[in-house]
Amino acid sequence: MRSISKRGTIEPFFAMDIMAKANALAAQGKDIVHMEIGQPGAPAPKLVREAAEKALVDGRIGYTDALGIRALRERIAQHYDDHYGVTVSPDAVAVTTGSSAGFNLAFLSLLEVGDRVILPSPGYPAYRNILFSLGLEVVEVETRAEDRWSLTAEDIRRVHAEKPVKGVLIASPANPSGTIMDGEALKSVVDVCDELGIWFISDEIYHSLEFGMKAETALRYSPNVVIINSFSKYYCMTGWRIGWMVLPEMAQRSVECLSQSLYLCPPMLSQVAAAAAFDAHEELDLVKAGYGRNRAYLMEALPKIGLGDFMPVDGAFYVYSDVSKLTNDSMDFALRSLSEAGVAITPGADFDRERGHRYVRLSFAGTEEAMHEGIRRLGDWLV
Amino acid sequence: MRSISKRGTIEPFFAMDIMAKANALAAQGKDIVHMEIGQPGAPAPKLVREAAEKALVDGRIGYTDALGIRALRERIAQHYDDHYGVTVSPDAVAVTTGSSAGFNLAFLSLLEVGDRVILPSPGYPAYRNILFSLGLEVVEVETRAEDRWSLTAEDIRRVHAEKPVKGVLIASPANPSGTIMDGEALKSVVDVCDELGIWFISDEIYHSLEFGMKAETALRYSPNVVIINSFSKYYCMTGWRIGWMVLPEMAQRSVECLSQSLYLCPPMLSQVAAAAAFDAHEELDLVKAGYGRNRAYLMEALPKIGLGDFMPVDGAFYVYSDVSKLTNDSMDFALRSLSEAGVAITPGADFDRERGHRYVRLSFAGTEEAMHEGIRRLGDWLV
Repeated sequence: MRSISKRGTIEPFFAMDIMAKANALAAQGKDIVHMEIGQPGAPAPKLVREAAEKALVDGRIGYTDALGIRALRERIAQHYDDHYGVTVSPDAVAVTTGSSAGFNLAFLSLLEVGDRVILPSPGYPAYRNILFSLGLEVVEVETRAEDRWSLTAEDIRRVHAEKPVKGVLIASPANPSGTIMDGEALKSVVDVCDELGIWFISDEIYHSLEFGMKAETALRYSPNVVIINSFSKYYCMTGWRIGWMVLPEMAQRSVECLSQSLYLCPPMLSQVAAAAAFDAHEELDLVKAGYGRNRAYLMEALPKIGLGDFMPVDGAFYVYSDVSKLTNDSMDFALRSLSEAGVAITPGADFDRERGHRYVRLSFAGTEEAMHEGIRRLGDWLV
Repeated sequence: MRSISKRGTIEPFFAMDIMAKANALAAQGKDIVHMEIGQPGAPAPKLVREAAEKALVDGRIGYTDALGIRALRERIAQHYDDHYGVTVSPDAVAVTTGSSAGFNLAFLSLLEVGDRVILPSPGYPAYRNILFSLGLEVVEVETRAEDRWSLTAEDIRRVHAEKPVKGVLIASPANPSGTIMDGEALKSVVDVCDELGIWFISDEIYHSLEFGMKAETALRYSPNVVIINSFSKYYCMTGWRIGWMVLPEMAQRSVECLSQSLYLCPPMLSQVAAAAAFDAHEELDLVKAGYGRNRAYLMEALPKIGLGDFMPVDGAFYVYSDVSKLTNDSMDFALRSLSEAGVAITPGADFDRERGHRYVRLSFAGTEEAMHEGIRRLGDWLV
């Protein structure tokens, strides 16, 4: 008889579930402060919206090449020269329907059913969920305070020696912690993957959102890595669903063919708009300065309301707080924060199945007003 | 060592490859008539573009619920009442990033690695390619002229008796032929799937593009079917990447969780715009009348240039022509049509791996001017 498949029975992405609940409450007229989703409070830059408006007036929003409009691929390649001083060919760039598509394409292109992939824990839950639905074995490796909560070359070596792995996926700045691996730490994991012949997938979607430390691209250390990036975060284009990959030559045609059949192409209006995003640094850096103020405010305010124990917030726009002094069930805590305090936050269960019950993630991507109101409500509720 | 996976080594979608080649030629200044891609020559309706412009002005284009904005889900549910007289709950509607996402989500949610799925041949190549990359076994069943080139209940019964299948996927109007199954023919395949406990996935993306015969929704015959539809075709919104599914209750949460991790959400601007598409029938029916004229023109003109042997063009905007009197290699024929005549057409290899070398697909979704110019060029080239 008919039933749902095992691979279709994945865990929810709790941040999205919480957002859906928050949206439903908002639809009933309740005022909710959103600190659950990694979504800029600012709209896309003016230049981006103007480019989209112009495309709407000009006419047909049609299919593009599966790997994206050539001019956008060229502009993205140029960004590597401008931002990192690293040379990238436009042929190596695949425009994708958000980084979500990038992960799906990378996993399908590089990894076979049953292959093992190392993920650091805590980490982005969609990695684990997509890998599971595609038949891959997720090997979660708990990160430790003494390694600044980052995966190490020794971790990879040890796990691979126990039973071979085919891929390693790391984000720096990390989600949920915001912690950055410095160049040396990143190089050491890229090098060990090169040495062991393992695919290294580098999630760089929080690049340009750095406070103090600089995030390096894994491309600096090896031509064999797969880079995944997005216009959602620094570029403030979440709902546009637009991102990109940089691919080693071996993977380019495979990703093109997979894209043709699985996506046809990324949304055209978003592609046209995204090309303008690289000219909008002035506006984007103002938004980023706001995150910097939000961050500074939270660093000061969170300890006062019992949420002061968190991992190093080097980048991105998250604080991952240990709430074990307040609860041993952060899921219940997050649901009550929403229903009782009107503040949506994400339970750690999203990011770490073992230790997540002790943590919550707060996003400071919203407006400064939202941060102050959120902390005021959480303070009233907790203290 | 590192290599590309077997599942990442899928066949190209030739229509997309031809379009990429055509775009590259156009970038060199060559004038190309596009008859390769199923893409309306008309832009999205004015109301749709105005809704998008308004959303751009209003502000942030953000994440939405993974299954889509509630108002759009309600509007789509209403469409079933308006258009078919069938009642659908908004909870059953999942907004997707084009029908492409709908197929991926349906396959992951309903089918396990190794499950067998029946596809009629000829058929849309992305079905086959997505199924392959997700580890499913494709069972292609050749359709016959005596069944009006449609799969029959007897076909399903016979294949299932040989070795059980888990799913059947049919499009009516079909791609590449445009052929429609009448209500009785569709009911008989839905019924046999219900009887045998097989998932029936109904690709209804060419609905409303009918010339004479009416296409029925499979929902009329069973609550257990999975419907996939899109705003790309009748609604002229290809590059917006927006579509929807109607799901049996059993599959709703699975598709929601898969969507959260694999897509986050469909592009928001496209969702807002799509809601306006249902109010744009006046403009859309004018576009459709143009397809009707294109169709009538091709029916008359194609026989004169040796392309007059095609399947019944009941709907959609394709003619699938037997070119075996002109070539026994339709891939070579299509490539030469592009380079020598400047007309992009799609080789049958996309749709039928056994018999496709004898066929090409011509799309009449373009403008009337494009059709006349395309036929003139093909005529000069062939005759």
